Amino acid sequence: MHRELHDFYRAYIACLNAQAWHDLSRFVAGDVIHNGRRLGLAGYRDMLAEDFAMIPDLAFRPGPVVAEAPFIAARLDFDCTPRATFLGLAVDGRRVTFAENVFYEIRDGRIGQVWSVIDKAAIEAALRGR
Amino acid sequence: MHRELHDFYRAYIACLNAQAWHDLSRFVAGDVIHNGRRLGLAGYRDMLAEDFAMIPDLAFRPGPVVAEAPFIAARLDFDCTPRATFLGLAVDGRRVTFAENVFYEIRDGRIGQVWSVIDKAAIEAALRGR
Repeated sequence: MHRELHDFYRAYIACLNAQAWHDLSRFVAGDVIHNGRRLGLAGYRDMLAEDFAMIPDLAFRPGPVVAEAPFIAARLDFDCTPRATFLGLAVDGRRVTFAENVFYEIRDGRIGQVWSVIDKAAIEAALRGR
Repeated sequence: MHRELHDFYRAYIACLNAQAWHDLSRFVAGDVIHNGRRLGLAGYRDMLAEDFAMIPDLAFRPGPVVAEAPFIAARLDFDCTPRATFLGLAVDGRRVTFAENVFYEIRDGRIGQVWSVIDKAAIEAALRGR
């Protein structure tokens, strides 16, 4: 069971990194909720596509992944160069490293709800320090 | 095994909410690392005691808790009134609600490493919106 959740998550991350948006419905429910907003599959896909547009070298790299039905929790480590503004910060093509700690609720084999927090304070500190 | 981790985490949270710092060594390793810094037990206790000094109504309330050895991941929901500055923001006694997504690595029955991200953007949005 945990093994299945890990396999599922590995395939989901591969889908994101390949920007294989036609496959996203295999992983994400049609009525998915992200941080309390009912984005739905199309809105979720648009959010991800926009992330890649703003951050051309975006890559999802999981650190610890913790699975216990119905949840998956993952720490994602990012090392990338957002073009302009990111999370309201003027990154302007500088390289930033930061983490996202994210929880997923799996319903009927797909991601039904996401609770994500990005470490904005770490990005601010990095921009100040350089 | 998962049951044990959940019991452990419930007791740890009760320890924090009771500010029972003399019990903290039952849950936290002597050489604990928090967000990459080797705080050690004394430094970890000081960090928590300072949080309660700055936020007198601080309470730890877990939402989803996901356990798979050697990890525990939890989403914590806060609803509190920091006295002055919090995460560099001039909260000044206003009520704020925000989440922390946190991962713990358990070593020899104690928390050995913590990766925590607090949703600073949510606090900023709340302060702007009120």
